[in-house]
Amino acid sequence: TGGKRFDYGQSPTVIGGYGEAIYNNYRDSSVKDQADLRRFVLFFGHKFNDRLRFNSELEIEHSWIEGGEGGEVAMEQAYLEYAISDKINTRAGLMLMPIGITNETHEPPTFYGVERNQVESLIIPSTWRELGLSAQGEALPGLEYNVGISTSLNAGKFKKPENGLRESRTAGGEAAANDLGFFGALNYRGVPGLLVGGSVFSGNTGQDGASNAALKGVAARVTLWDLHANYTVGGLDLQALYARGTMNDADKVSAATGVVAPKSLYGWYTQAAYHVWKKGDFDVAPFIRYERYNTQASVADGYASDPLNNETVTTMGVNFKLHPQVVLKADIQNFKTDNKKDRYNLGIGYMF
Amino acid sequence: TGGKRFDYGQSPTVIGGYGEAIYNNYRDSSVKDQADLRRFVLFFGHKFNDRLRFNSELEIEHSWIEGGEGGEVAMEQAYLEYAISDKINTRAGLMLMPIGITNETHEPPTFYGVERNQVESLIIPSTWRELGLSAQGEALPGLEYNVGISTSLNAGKFKKPENGLRESRTAGGEAAANDLGFFGALNYRGVPGLLVGGSVFSGNTGQDGASNAALKGVAARVTLWDLHANYTVGGLDLQALYARGTMNDADKVSAATGVVAPKSLYGWYTQAAYHVWKKGDFDVAPFIRYERYNTQASVADGYASDPLNNETVTTMGVNFKLHPQVVLKADIQNFKTDNKKDRYNLGIGYMF
Amino acid sequence: TGGKRFDYGQSPTVIGGYGEAIYNNYRDSSVKDQADLRRFVLFFGHKFNDRLRFNSELEIEHSWIEGGEGGEVAMEQAYLEYAISDKINTRAGLMLMPIGITNETHEPPTFYGVERNQVESLIIPSTWRELGLSAQGEALPGLEYNVGISTSLNAGKFKKPENGLRESRTAGGEAAANDLGFFGALNYRGVPGLLVGGSVFSGNTGQDGASNAALKGVAARVTLWDLHANYTVGGLDLQALYARGTMNDADKVSAATGVVAPKSLYGWYTQAAYHVWKKGDFDVAPFIRYERYNTQASVADGYASDPLNNETVTTMGVNFKLHPQVVLKADIQNFKTDNKKDRYNLGIGYMF
Repeated sequence: TGGKRFDYGQSPTVIGGYGEAIYNNYRDSSVKDQADLRRFVLFFGHKFNDRLRFNSELEIEHSWIEGGEGGEVAMEQAYLEYAISDKINTRAGLMLMPIGITNETHEPPTFYGVERNQVESLIIPSTWRELGLSAQGEALPGLEYNVGISTSLNAGKFKKPENGLRESRTAGGEAAANDLGFFGALNYRGVPGLLVGGSVFSGNTGQDGASNAALKGVAARVTLWDLHANYTVGGLDLQALYARGTMNDADKVSAATGVVAPKSLYGWYTQAAYHVWKKGDFDVAPFIRYERYNTQASVADGYASDPLNNETVTTMGVNFKLHPQVVLKADIQNFKTDNKKDRYNLGIGYMF
Repeated sequence: TGGKRFDYGQSPTVIGGYGEAIYNNYRDSSVKDQADLRRFVLFFGHKFNDRLRFNSELEIEHSWIEGGEGGEVAMEQAYLEYAISDKINTRAGLMLMPIGITNETHEPPTFYGVERNQVESLIIPSTWRELGLSAQGEALPGLEYNVGISTSLNAGKFKKPENGLRESRTAGGEAAANDLGFFGALNYRGVPGLLVGGSVFSGNTGQDGASNAALKGVAARVTLWDLHANYTVGGLDLQALYARGTMNDADKVSAATGVVAPKSLYGWYTQAAYHVWKKGDFDVAPFIRYERYNTQASVADGYASDPLNNETVTTMGVNFKLHPQVVLKADIQNFKTDNKKDRYNLGIGYMF
Repeated sequence: TGGKRFDYGQSPTVIGGYGEAIYNNYRDSSVKDQADLRRFVLFFGHKFNDRLRFNSELEIEHSWIEGGEGGEVAMEQAYLEYAISDKINTRAGLMLMPIGITNETHEPPTFYGVERNQVESLIIPSTWRELGLSAQGEALPGLEYNVGISTSLNAGKFKKPENGLRESRTAGGEAAANDLGFFGALNYRGVPGLLVGGSVFSGNTGQDGASNAALKGVAARVTLWDLHANYTVGGLDLQALYARGTMNDADKVSAATGVVAPKSLYGWYTQAAYHVWKKGDFDVAPFIRYERYNTQASVADGYASDPLNNETVTTMGVNFKLHPQVVLKADIQNFKTDNKKDRYNLGIGYMF
């Protein structure tokens, strides 16, 4: 969870950062190869006193932005946290939704593969952050909770079914706030090497028609939940996740936006990695990941899913760490349905 | 004044920041509620030697910017300062205009209310910064002066009368510089708890038609001045400000831009707060503020003011400090003329 | 070279910065004067261990960006570097091309004149950075090499012949990567006060039509090379540079983009400065620079060069350093061909 990353030594103000550069080489020559400084992120944190802190992340995506073109400059996090007691920490501000594994822990050295997994990009729309209030802590030995209320998605901004609900995120910028959401997560880390957890978010998304007048009076509740596990034993690193979302009033959202909104969407993946070689700071770990997902698993009557959104992805590759915080990556990705996406990827990443 | 904020201990380079997240809930259901990471600002300063320093503020407004949408990324300040003597400090670069109280001191814990006051947003267009040269210091014991020359407003960019002259600011980015301005401010702090001061800015704004050819040869001088006072005694915190601006050639600016430019605009407010409860770092202070302003107090012959721009606002609320640098805020705002703006607001803010 | 700038004392993370504000006053009244916070740049670096480091530069140009207007936010550098041995350092990520003098060393106190020289802006498109892999070090005593492969220019984005190849740069943001480039540089610093060097970059730029379908199958190789020297002796500071570029398939690029692409472009300058007065940190150095360049030295058959692109510029002025890292500048520029550009300039700059 965000705040723990910062090591406030004697200085009350800390800076850090992470980033990644990626090269995608597509098998199909009609799809153009690309190199991208995908993310450059800076952390800024300040400790006001032992109970009160500020944490933030500022991100530049795709290297530059000018004249309405290029990438994005965005806050990923910016929240105050106050520890009421040993068991209850509270936060207010722009915060990462505690859904899944990747959304909160997304620095390149922490995950396998050049690209983040698809399920936690398209079903769980990482990096997903909302303005909200939350409380978190250790409820029982090893059992962490995180609950809160926050701004919700905005169905009026739904645009690309192939991206799940990504375009509906408001990311804390003049966010429609007629409908709010709530979230809760439980994660158990009581056994060394094991993480087992689950989470849920639910909120109306019609926003009283704030972004699309045709959605006035439409609730369009979205509920998204996941179950996940990670187990590290010996040199083996195993991970699995299942996520599922539903949208009420998908017929009205489809009619209002002119794109086919999902009544339901889901995805899951399993992943195995093995640390084959370690020497000093070096660590080489091949991995394989298998993903199934459908961003339009079901749609409203009278609408049709695009079969390209029902996808199976296999990723095989290797993470080579030069240092626990610096990684070189290479992998091959096979898309069963839309094989124009087949590619190999190279990447470098760091965090500090 | 900006430079004092930085505490250069043993490190020649310092970072800091401030920010605020705001929730607006409007009484009229036709106006949509909103949550916003209004401002995220970072300070970067460097001390070259005991006389020479650099100070800067980089701001992200409204959380993100992408594809021509979203908020703003902008420099709020970026200037070098050189102390010629104990009495004369000089600055060069992008600097805050020393007009009013809020323009130079705008960190959320330093003012009452979730939103900055209207008069110092619409009559004094805070955060107002220009590229310029200035000198400042203590002329007599307790009496601070600040004088300078700078880029001026650009009448060719005048756009929304309801926002006063805000859109005419150039903010240091490829600013038209055919017409320059000058400014001066005096502030007396010789009595503990008291601040009494005034300021003036004056400059032509036609810019030889740089942004609007119809303004070629038009002077369109803008003069803006204010008087202000703050008095803190016991638990009481009293503040008042009067600001007035005039624009010459308002007829020509109106004709050239197609919007009704003000011949004059003015506003004032009074504010009282009382620290009802303090404990450790905690400090609770209810407040009330009464504002009158008109962004089109008079207009050129043949043009008509929009009566909605003649407004009276009452704001009642409370600032709850968790720490001298961290504040929670809540208030209710009543707009006498345009009651669609009636709302309650919640906010959090910090500075470090 | 970028990484050396950072002085990692006891802290593994360092920040720094540089910037400049510029005032341009044109002789011809039809050209509007301008003041601009041209560049504000922050450095962030981290040392993971004695061999492994991260260096980056984040830039805001022209003070602000909002709603598709204003300036630019961009990464200038963001690379990891790993020292394989004393003789071989390697880098991966977004890096400055080691072409010419200014592209890698561009902080305002390091060059004469308010504006960077024209040849290293229009012939060598500074600040030119690409995503790539490189190796650098000292091959022989005093002789530094730097070689690498990188993303290349993108001819499909060629737009303004008067700017040379500037618009074809991809700057690491979703860069077309069907065609890659390679670069090499040698610089000799073995004699105190002397630098003699040269460099070359070459790469196809058609990018298989990624940005302009009419360039599918067109190689459009660009080769750009330079020779440069700097000699500092007594109070004298002498510098000269020659740069030349060629583009194959200029006819096809011209046809595809609708603008007249150069078959060749070239430029050179000589510059002399003399430190007339030094006292403490102060240092006053008048200078003169003479530049010749043509961004359309030759074009494809059937196309015509714009004679305005064949230019001779004389710049005379003075750099006044308040401190080795802070400079005030003033100069006069005379453009022989396009005398609408004649102007005097004032500037301030810093680096830390």
